[in-house]
Amino acid sequence: MKAIQVGLLGAGTVGSGVFNVLKRNQEEIKRRAGRGIEITMVADLDTARATSVVGNGAKVVSDARAIISNPDIDIVVELIGGYGIARQLVMEAIDAGKHVVTANKALLAVHGTEIFAAAHKRGVMVAFEAAVAGGIPIIKALREGLTANSIEWIAGIINGTTNFILSEMRDKGIDFATALKDAQRLGYAEADPTFDIEGVDAAHKATIMSAIAFGVPVQFDKAYVEGITKLAAQDIKYAEQLGYRIKLLGITKRTPKGIELRVHPSLIPTRRLIANVEGAMNAVVVQGDAVGTTLYYGKGAGSEPTASAVIADLVDITRLHTADAAHRVPHLAFQPESMSDAIILPISEVVTSYYLRLRVADEPGVLAKVTGLLANAGVSIDAVLQREAGEGEKQTDLIILTHDVREGTMNDVLAQMQALPTVLAPITRIRKEELA
Amino acid sequence: MKAIQVGLLGAGTVGSGVFNVLKRNQEEIKRRAGRGIEITMVADLDTARATSVVGNGAKVVSDARAIISNPDIDIVVELIGGYGIARQLVMEAIDAGKHVVTANKALLAVHGTEIFAAAHKRGVMVAFEAAVAGGIPIIKALREGLTANSIEWIAGIINGTTNFILSEMRDKGIDFATALKDAQRLGYAEADPTFDIEGVDAAHKATIMSAIAFGVPVQFDKAYVEGITKLAAQDIKYAEQLGYRIKLLGITKRTPKGIELRVHPSLIPTRRLIANVEGAMNAVVVQGDAVGTTLYYGKGAGSEPTASAVIADLVDITRLHTADAAHRVPHLAFQPESMSDAIILPISEVVTSYYLRLRVADEPGVLAKVTGLLANAGVSIDAVLQREAGEGEKQTDLIILTHDVREGTMNDVLAQMQALPTVLAPITRIRKEELA
Repeated sequence: MKAIQVGLLGAGTVGSGVFNVLKRNQEEIKRRAGRGIEITMVADLDTARATSVVGNGAKVVSDARAIISNPDIDIVVELIGGYGIARQLVMEAIDAGKHVVTANKALLAVHGTEIFAAAHKRGVMVAFEAAVAGGIPIIKALREGLTANSIEWIAGIINGTTNFILSEMRDKGIDFATALKDAQRLGYAEADPTFDIEGVDAAHKATIMSAIAFGVPVQFDKAYVEGITKLAAQDIKYAEQLGYRIKLLGITKRTPKGIELRVHPSLIPTRRLIANVEGAMNAVVVQGDAVGTTLYYGKGAGSEPTASAVIADLVDITRLHTADAAHRVPHLAFQPESMSDAIILPISEVVTSYYLRLRVADEPGVLAKVTGLLANAGVSIDAVLQREAGEGEKQTDLIILTHDVREGTMNDVLAQMQALPTVLAPITRIRKEELA
Repeated sequence: MKAIQVGLLGAGTVGSGVFNVLKRNQEEIKRRAGRGIEITMVADLDTARATSVVGNGAKVVSDARAIISNPDIDIVVELIGGYGIARQLVMEAIDAGKHVVTANKALLAVHGTEIFAAAHKRGVMVAFEAAVAGGIPIIKALREGLTANSIEWIAGIINGTTNFILSEMRDKGIDFATALKDAQRLGYAEADPTFDIEGVDAAHKATIMSAIAFGVPVQFDKAYVEGITKLAAQDIKYAEQLGYRIKLLGITKRTPKGIELRVHPSLIPTRRLIANVEGAMNAVVVQGDAVGTTLYYGKGAGSEPTASAVIADLVDITRLHTADAAHRVPHLAFQPESMSDAIILPISEVVTSYYLRLRVADEPGVLAKVTGLLANAGVSIDAVLQREAGEGEKQTDLIILTHDVREGTMNDVLAQMQALPTVLAPITRIRKEELA
């Protein structure tokens, strides 16, 4: 049988990984897929770079449309990134009847509805295993492996840069700015790290997982997004003393009122497996009603780990493209006509527990006042840690762990606490997830 | 579209789980699969038990063949277990043109070659996600999610009973016999636990993963199988002091000489995620050349976790059964005509490192003699731990961790060590895996 013909848009880090892995393992992949898979064309504005990657192995062009319009090309792999030209080219490829593989989480989280609708209408597949958690086959697990389950929640470490920074802060007791510089020096953070450290990248991925888990459209604009830039080294230390680690989690959860979709730093119990995921690694915990807790761990970025996911999609399409479209795996796990209209809850409606750090005057009655405010609002306390004030110090840190409470309620209590004259600095509030 | 009609053979723990989950989540599963999936017949010799499970929801029969011969049944789910009647019924179902889903690892590890060949010939699917690691979608990850990779090795905690026992031994410092009794009392071990504690169950699962990872036929008879019955509490303690945990691992590895396929207790570094998998949980680490290290964690047994995997198979078949057989996912990941004839290595050819515990006379020169024997055989030492002899004691424990060595060589050295007059008791030898 003739090999499946693939055109790559973009010959950067991931593109070269896809080319190299496909070449290195071509014999084994063919033995699995039952058919060869060949990259025959590569488009990159930097044709010299593209040529240095593929040599004589594929035709290099500067114009992506030369690939999209080529009738011999079966699958277009979009590795350009961003919402601009990538969106246009993906739509054109679909329009031209090409199957599409993309690693572009930003594009799918923001424009997924339009893209999947177009693909459905045209009868082509848009595959995106590489868009979430790199080489970990989490899309496949959610969409196929756990298909029997009513998914209850997903919580994932889905951004390697921030997990590396948090690991460094904990290991070395350094502050955020120093850890970020280390990460940049070591290649774990980009020169402009905004999307990573502000939680945007994780929110793109959480948005995609949320859609697949609960059968709702992708709604990135409804996600609550908070990064790690304000995390202090001392909070990591206090959390550790209380038996918790701080991780940037992407969380999505089904509740009777609607769906939670949020990214923020979270305390999680150290004894949970995911709390022990360190460095640039990714891990996703999925809670299903039948299967219980499952966890998926691996590299969330990098040339070959991401290529692993892209090629898995190529093999899937190779296997499935002859099946009638109605029998393929739906893009967002649920059939397009069976999507749910459950709402995404605003963060004020989210129910979770909290870690609070208050800088307080070291005098009698402070704890009573603070805990009194919590009690009045019906917030119960899980643990309290009050540091002894240093010799001659007149201030100390008061750490409180609460039980579950609606965030709106918590915000009101925090405002009251902040107004107390004995509370001497802005209160630090970090959400806490038991993940049980 | 008419619902897919399923017949269950066996209405025990897993059978009732499949029925209940399919019923509870039927609406959501249909929204995913695009078509209803209904259990319309259940066969069990104990028809009263079957009726108590399904009520009026399905027709109960005592004769499995009434299901197999029913032209309305699309998929037969075999949940009887064992190699006897289960094998016969699976072969008859295939012969009748039914797709088959089974959780029966013993059957597939021993008779898989015959079963998959018959299914291929007849153009039906035999799906078995539930056969390995219960609810964890590890078969799908290996066969589809990691299809780009040349798999290097797999190491898994794939028997919950033994992991529970080992966790109890470590946590409570108790011996094997006590921990086994606890496990039986709590329902984690069967009245006859032989298959679990002797490693046979884990070897069935490792055999299946080995075939899928490397494209070789299932060859349970070539697996090296060693259980946990001889593990002493003190070895768990010494391992801990050296930074290791002892787990029963199912391991399969590609080497230039052939494939390793073995189940035995193994020391693994405590800092590895899999070393922290406790209780009855399962986890599988897969090392691929492109993706690097990935890990999959969840419940390896139980009614609903296993049902989760069985139903995922039902949905897969529902989706794929209209595709031409050549475009389905091959049973053992590789196309039947592309299987490898790589040999399974005998255990004497396996290269690994070792933990040795010697009961030795507390006198000068003992360490020199023991380490001299290792040096002569070219075995290098990673760590030594010598307990101070107690007050008035004339014996002590000498613990040695070695670097990698061929097992045949190690056996020779062990025989020489055992012959030393200063070695006072049978030497304990446990294999050690760095998993890096």
